[in-house]
Amino acid sequence: MAAARPIFVVAGVGAGSGTGASTARLFSKNGYRVAVIARGADRAKKLADEINSSGGEAAGFGTSDYAYKSILSVMDEIKSFKWPSTQQPAQIRAALWNAGNSVFNQFLDVSEDDLNLSLQSNVQGPFAFSRQAVLSFRDNELDERGKRGTLLFTGATASTRGNTWTSAVAAGKFGLRSLSQSLAKEFGKENIHVAHTIIDGIILTERTIARHSNMPKAQFEENADARLNPDSIAEAYFYLANQDRSAWTWELDLRPAHEKW
Amino acid sequence: MAAARPIFVVAGVGAGSGTGASTARLFSKNGYRVAVIARGADRAKKLADEINSSGGEAAGFGTSDYAYKSILSVMDEIKSFKWPSTQQPAQIRAALWNAGNSVFNQFLDVSEDDLNLSLQSNVQGPFAFSRQAVLSFRDNELDERGKRGTLLFTGATASTRGNTWTSAVAAGKFGLRSLSQSLAKEFGKENIHVAHTIIDGIILTERTIARHSNMPKAQFEENADARLNPDSIAEAYFYLANQDRSAWTWELDLRPAHEKW
Amino acid sequence: MAAARPIFVVAGVGAGSGTGASTARLFSKNGYRVAVIARGADRAKKLADEINSSGGEAAGFGTSDYAYKSILSVMDEIKSFKWPSTQQPAQIRAALWNAGNSVFNQFLDVSEDDLNLSLQSNVQGPFAFSRQAVLSFRDNELDERGKRGTLLFTGATASTRGNTWTSAVAAGKFGLRSLSQSLAKEFGKENIHVAHTIIDGIILTERTIARHSNMPKAQFEENADARLNPDSIAEAYFYLANQDRSAWTWELDLRPAHEKW
Amino acid sequence: MAAARPIFVVAGVGAGSGTGASTARLFSKNGYRVAVIARGADRAKKLADEINSSGGEAAGFGTSDYAYKSILSVMDEIKSFKWPSTQQPAQIRAALWNAGNSVFNQFLDVSEDDLNLSLQSNVQGPFAFSRQAVLSFRDNELDERGKRGTLLFTGATASTRGNTWTSAVAAGKFGLRSLSQSLAKEFGKENIHVAHTIIDGIILTERTIARHSNMPKAQFEENADARLNPDSIAEAYFYLANQDRSAWTWELDLRPAHEKW
Repeated sequence: MAAARPIFVVAGVGAGSGTGASTARLFSKNGYRVAVIARGADRAKKLADEINSSGGEAAGFGTSDYAYKSILSVMDEIKSFKWPSTQQPAQIRAALWNAGNSVFNQFLDVSEDDLNLSLQSNVQGPFAFSRQAVLSFRDNELDERGKRGTLLFTGATASTRGNTWTSAVAAGKFGLRSLSQSLAKEFGKENIHVAHTIIDGIILTERTIARHSNMPKAQFEENADARLNPDSIAEAYFYLANQDRSAWTWELDLRPAHEKW
Repeated sequence: MAAARPIFVVAGVGAGSGTGASTARLFSKNGYRVAVIARGADRAKKLADEINSSGGEAAGFGTSDYAYKSILSVMDEIKSFKWPSTQQPAQIRAALWNAGNSVFNQFLDVSEDDLNLSLQSNVQGPFAFSRQAVLSFRDNELDERGKRGTLLFTGATASTRGNTWTSAVAAGKFGLRSLSQSLAKEFGKENIHVAHTIIDGIILTERTIARHSNMPKAQFEENADARLNPDSIAEAYFYLANQDRSAWTWELDLRPAHEKW
Repeated sequence: MAAARPIFVVAGVGAGSGTGASTARLFSKNGYRVAVIARGADRAKKLADEINSSGGEAAGFGTSDYAYKSILSVMDEIKSFKWPSTQQPAQIRAALWNAGNSVFNQFLDVSEDDLNLSLQSNVQGPFAFSRQAVLSFRDNELDERGKRGTLLFTGATASTRGNTWTSAVAAGKFGLRSLSQSLAKEFGKENIHVAHTIIDGIILTERTIARHSNMPKAQFEENADARLNPDSIAEAYFYLANQDRSAWTWELDLRPAHEKW
Repeated sequence: MAAARPIFVVAGVGAGSGTGASTARLFSKNGYRVAVIARGADRAKKLADEINSSGGEAAGFGTSDYAYKSILSVMDEIKSFKWPSTQQPAQIRAALWNAGNSVFNQFLDVSEDDLNLSLQSNVQGPFAFSRQAVLSFRDNELDERGKRGTLLFTGATASTRGNTWTSAVAAGKFGLRSLSQSLAKEFGKENIHVAHTIIDGIILTERTIARHSNMPKAQFEENADARLNPDSIAEAYFYLANQDRSAWTWELDLRPAHEKW
């Protein structure tokens, strides 16, 4: 694969300690070039630099928001990007939409902006991302697993259940889930694999550690039964990307062993 | 009820031959004043006139679109409207969101505008509508059924299943369904009843009759086993609005007897 | 309808204070003859006597258990029963399976017998009941609603969610729900309507009142927001039985206004 | 792991060409001893012999049926079995219930025996199997993934959808799915992982090849887009068994790339 290593695009890498970043690292270790999209070019560059200095090959792409046109545009940049290591064309073979703000609020406190932000990062951005990914995958030959590409989406508890405090985020996450199902059904027959994960618990990141700082450390950071390790979520994505064409998963859930559900 | 008959608000009455209009007529016959919202003041007025001339009491309210602010605003109009028949304050006791465009298209043919229109009529408009309805219901006393008000939403097959050709409409309809569930859970404890229907088949309207004109009439218009009668859907809404507080339905599906599902 | 009033069969009337009995009374008041099935001929007779003395027409049928063959047999009795008031043949037009024991236990405390009892009352009995109901409905002409008969099933929270303490009851209730869906899809085209309710809360019966006796009365018996009134569930069944063929519901949920879900 | 390799128990290996057998082989290649349960000791022995002659370590256990007591008993045999290679105690660390007959029939052609067979192989057998597996897992220390054991179940399209022709199989498969969910919720907190797969398509086995013999070979046997390879399903089970405790999947679906769903 050395000459034209496949490209993995990941949108939504936050500050570099969560699911998007872990997945970027894992795909990099397994031979993918990684194109990283983040809100803010600095965040994207920081993760790309880290991967490059660890022997991988990555490039960062900033976007100011997850609006439809912004995502179309950043994906165009990625498609025309010249990777330093090769003159040969490289192919996008996997893409993960991991962005998505999480405004939790009682219904009457959800503003129009809150709602629009949830729709942008969970529906409008993903529609543009999916269009670009699918168009790109279509140009690929079948790989050894019988696929042209894998399109992955990060969902949440709110993807299947509306609840008090989640009206805004659930409206977006339900929409993201429906998009992934529509795509899976429409593009399976073109050997494009679309999958959706339901993350049903709190993910261990710098942000969630900070937020739980008033809880004894053992109950959150060090208690692997109580929160999701982003590296473990990354493994799920890597497993999905490697499923051969005879047995594709559209959806799987992931939660810590002791999660109450 | 004569002195201060309760008000039923219905958004989305189309050309007057579909679910919204049938429900307006049925609630009118059962003692409600009806406030009708349509895209275009003329459509709203036409249905209101019809109801008024049949012995009911209705008023029409036009909106240019289903954008968040437009819906906030038309609901403000309804709240401050002076009903001719009474000086007494009237209470909104039931509200139905029945709007929702239905763009069916292959994913790559869905434009940004198509998507935005689906989100507007299925998510952003309903968020504004629900806010206004809930705020209004909160001022009501409990009625004899133990409720302050009933908020109803019209869903579709695409509310629970993404499919080829339905990516845009499903993204909106999934969002509408999640909104209704979040609201049902949040406001049940305030005795506000929220319900969602899944219309799983074609509704008999002037528009669907026209569209099926190349099919023998007996197979569609006259075949009650093959399409939904909007009056029958209206009865479902009236049943839901009358459920007493000990047994509330959040969701029911409706389909013709011979529908394949 | 006087000469040959339709027959409503209800299986599972308990001690006469729950859903089955309430539904029997409501259908009786609305012109149906009622055939009541209970474990124990005395329970069945007691409810039938009560309905007869209130101006209705009912007959009780005892069964020792809900085994497949027992249910086939009691349904044969009902089909050949001579109703005193008429020499004319009467038709079974509606049937409700409301039986179902509820063993709640941690998994390791569920015995083989517990499981078998759940399967008997929730799956094997209902399969026999459905066979007899469907065979009977098939002989009917279409009624004015365009149906040959309505077959109703009482489900529960455990119908859609396995949980700690519910492994035995959920295994049965999931099976009952699947049966109702298979039947709805198979017999809709013969104008036989099959519906399933999900009762998501505690029903107010003599038994549940006794069980809650250590709770202040106001919180359970007198608090209509906290428990389901069996008469309200009966209304749901009567509404379902009256849906015309253009708009049939397969499933609806019912819960008290203040239920947390 | 050589001294006391973990044991994987698989029930339902058919004629040795399907999911159960593929999974037995894969776990064997990855260091597990394999205990194989089949209806008929000869079938079980045949697969065990094959694994043993390929450098693995397996033992076959026959059962005459999947009745509750039969399964309790064959699991007792496995627990007390002396593996030739070691004097040390070995631990059951993974178990797969893959049995399940598939009677497809119109509802009125489903006999009492058909139904009982479906319940036996999909509900009663699995309850006994799960009891034995859980009791065994409880004695284990946490492994390096933070689990005491993984209990796996093979579901099907009929696990989430009742349909014409599937009333008997769906009643069983719904029950199996509910069992797996109840167990996952109850035993997660004891670090026992329970997962369920939904196989949504035809699996390539000797039997399904024979059944499709009137179809051009390319459309079924050689067309990897049209049927599930049992080895690919086995990989899903191996992935699930290896998930660390921070991110466990309860359910995933698997279908061929070109499956219409």
